[in-house]
Amino acid sequence: MSIYWNKRVYSLRPYIPGEQPKGAARIIKLNTNENPYPPPPEVIEAISKAAGRLRLYPDPASTELREALSAKFNLDPKQIFAGNGSDEVLAFAFAAFFPSGAEENRGLSVLFPDVTYSFYPVFASLWDVQYKTIPLRDDFSLSIDDYRLPCAGAIFPNPNAPTSLALAVNEIAKLAAYLQEQRRVLIVDEAYIDFGAESAAPYIERFDNLLVVRTFSKSASLAGLRVGYALGQRPLIEGLERIRDSFNSYPVDALAAAGAAAAVKADAYYTAVNAKITATRERVSAALGAMGWQMPPSKANFIFARPPLPDGNDGAKPLFEALRKNGILTRYFPGERTKNFLRISMGTEDDMNRFLEVCEKLLK
Amino acid sequence: MSIYWNKRVYSLRPYIPGEQPKGAARIIKLNTNENPYPPPPEVIEAISKAAGRLRLYPDPASTELREALSAKFNLDPKQIFAGNGSDEVLAFAFAAFFPSGAEENRGLSVLFPDVTYSFYPVFASLWDVQYKTIPLRDDFSLSIDDYRLPCAGAIFPNPNAPTSLALAVNEIAKLAAYLQEQRRVLIVDEAYIDFGAESAAPYIERFDNLLVVRTFSKSASLAGLRVGYALGQRPLIEGLERIRDSFNSYPVDALAAAGAAAAVKADAYYTAVNAKITATRERVSAALGAMGWQMPPSKANFIFARPPLPDGNDGAKPLFEALRKNGILTRYFPGERTKNFLRISMGTEDDMNRFLEVCEKLLK
Repeated sequence: MSIYWNKRVYSLRPYIPGEQPKGAARIIKLNTNENPYPPPPEVIEAISKAAGRLRLYPDPASTELREALSAKFNLDPKQIFAGNGSDEVLAFAFAAFFPSGAEENRGLSVLFPDVTYSFYPVFASLWDVQYKTIPLRDDFSLSIDDYRLPCAGAIFPNPNAPTSLALAVNEIAKLAAYLQEQRRVLIVDEAYIDFGAESAAPYIERFDNLLVVRTFSKSASLAGLRVGYALGQRPLIEGLERIRDSFNSYPVDALAAAGAAAAVKADAYYTAVNAKITATRERVSAALGAMGWQMPPSKANFIFARPPLPDGNDGAKPLFEALRKNGILTRYFPGERTKNFLRISMGTEDDMNRFLEVCEKLLK
Repeated sequence: MSIYWNKRVYSLRPYIPGEQPKGAARIIKLNTNENPYPPPPEVIEAISKAAGRLRLYPDPASTELREALSAKFNLDPKQIFAGNGSDEVLAFAFAAFFPSGAEENRGLSVLFPDVTYSFYPVFASLWDVQYKTIPLRDDFSLSIDDYRLPCAGAIFPNPNAPTSLALAVNEIAKLAAYLQEQRRVLIVDEAYIDFGAESAAPYIERFDNLLVVRTFSKSASLAGLRVGYALGQRPLIEGLERIRDSFNSYPVDALAAAGAAAAVKADAYYTAVNAKITATRERVSAALGAMGWQMPPSKANFIFARPPLPDGNDGAKPLFEALRKNGILTRYFPGERTKNFLRISMGTEDDMNRFLEVCEKLLK
C-alpha cells in the first residue's frame, strides 16, 4: 500500500503463477505445463548465433520469426503478431479489442468460462474491461450456445485449462460467425493446441473477428524464452501493433526471436516429442483411472484429475501438499468447482512412473 | 482502421523507433544510441549456460539479476524491479503512479519537458494520463523551478534525450523534495547516466517518491537483450510488481536475466568501454565545433548538434538524408525546436572518422 499508487494499482488482484523452485533439489515439476523434453540443438545454435549482435536493438517486427510462421500457417507475415509470451499478446488483445470503461462498455460484458485461465479476469481489470463468466457444463464441457447473447466479445482457451477439454473447431466457427454479426472479437487461446485438438487457424481467412493466440512455452519447449504470437486478419494484427508500439517497441528480444524462428522450422522434432507426451498422457490417464481417479478426456499436455478421496472442505489440497512433500509439484486451484481436482502436467515417462508410485502409496 | 478496435486503439499515436536496417550492407548506425562495442565474453557465456534450461519458465522475480544489482547499488533486492527493457518499466510506472482518467486527474497533469523522449506522451495516452509539457530553456537546459507547480507527478531523462544535457543531482533532489510534499512521484530516466552524469540512485533512501529507471541497452551494450530496471523504495517497486503481475508474469526471459546479471558483474570492462565512448564524444564534439557546428555539452553517448546550414523550413533534414545516402544513419526530429539539429550516436573511432569525413564533404 502506498500514497503513491493510483486507483488502478489498488484495484488489481494480480495473477499468481505456479511455483518455480530454485536450487538444485531433485523435484518433479508437474505444475506449470512445461514440456519435459528440451528444444532441439538447432534452436540453441540459432540463439548462440544471435548472441553475436546483442549490442544492437532487435528487429522490432521480428521479421524472420513471422516469416517462418507465415510458411507454417500459409498466412501473410502481416497477419502474424509476435510478443513476449502469449500472456503479453493476450494483454495487448484485451487492450485493443474489448471495450474499456463504463462509457464504452454500455453494459455489455466480455464472456469467458467460469473455470479457465485465471489471468483473463486480471487482464480485464488492468484495462477496465467488464466481463462475465459463463459456467461450464457439469462435465466441464463448453457449449457455444451459452455464448449466444449480446456481449462485448469472448475468449477461451482451446483446449481449455485447467479442464483439458477441447472444443470441436466447427463449434468455434459457429461462435465466430455469431460474434461477427455482433461486430465482436473472438479470441481463441491455443496454448495447448498441439496435443490433439484442432486449430481454428484455418478459419482466419473467413472470420475477420477471429484472433488465434499461440505460445512457444508448451509444445515448443521454450517457456524460458517468452515468445507468443497471434494470427488474424490484418486489422486485428494492426490493432495489436498499435498497442505494442505504445508500450514497448521491441518486446521480443534478439535471442528469443532467433530461437523461436528455429523452433518453427524444427517441426519433425516437435511432432515426435509431442507424440511422446500424448502417449504418456494416455498411459497415465488409464493408470489413474484404474486407481479410481476421474478425469475429463484431455487433449492437452496435462490432465485435470479427481483423486478417489472422500468429499471434504479442502478437496484435493491435502494430496497436493503430500505430493509436494514427496518432491512432486502439481497445481491445485481452490474454488468450489475445482477444489477436488489436481492439474498434473505430463513429465517424462520416469517422472510419471514416480508420480504414479507416490500416488499409490499416498492413497492406499 | 477496424470496426473491432476500441476507443483506446483509435486514440493512440504509437511511438516510432529509429530504423533498424536489415541485411548485410555496410552501414554506420548512429541513430539509436546503441553501444558500438560488444558485451564482454562472460555475458555470452552466461547466456549459453542459461540456454540449457529453456524448457522451464524463467524465475518470475529475476532473483539473480536483482541480487547482482542490489550489490552494485547497495540497495535491498526488494527495492529493485526488472523488466523487458526500460520502455516496459516506464510503461508500468505510468500505469501505476500517474492518475488515470478525468475523475482521478482532477485537472492535474504529469509534467515532462517539451523536448524529450517522445515515448512519454505515448505512455500517457495508453493509460489515459493527462500531461503537460514544460518548455526547456532556450539553451535546452531544464530548470526545476519550472516544475514547482501543482501537478500529478513528473518524469524526465537525465541526461535528457535528444538534447544530451545533464541536470545536477542536487537539483533533482530539490524537485523530489517539492513533489514529496505534494505526494507525487518523480521518475528519473537514467538511460544515459553512465556517460558522465551523476545518478539520483543515492537519494532513494531519502525520497519515497523517487523512482530511478535504468537500462542495459546503452552503456551495457545489450540493446538486443531487452532488460531495464527500476530502483525505488519498496512501495513503489511493489506498485510496479502489481502491474507486471496483471500483465505478464515473466517479462524477463531466462537468457536476458542471465546475460544482464553477468553484465552487472563486468563493471571493469564496461567502465573502460564507456570511457572510450566519452573520449570519442569529446573528440567529435571538438571536431564538429571547429567545422562550425553548435551543440550543447553532452553527458550522453550521443550529441545533439546543429550543422552550419542556412535557416530553412526543413532544417537539418537534407543533411540527414544526404548522410543516409552515404551509408550513415543519424536521427532527425521534426518540430520547431529540434529541426535544425541531428542526434548522432557515438560509434567506434573509425565510424566517427568516416562520419566527420562525409560531413566535411557534404557541407563544403
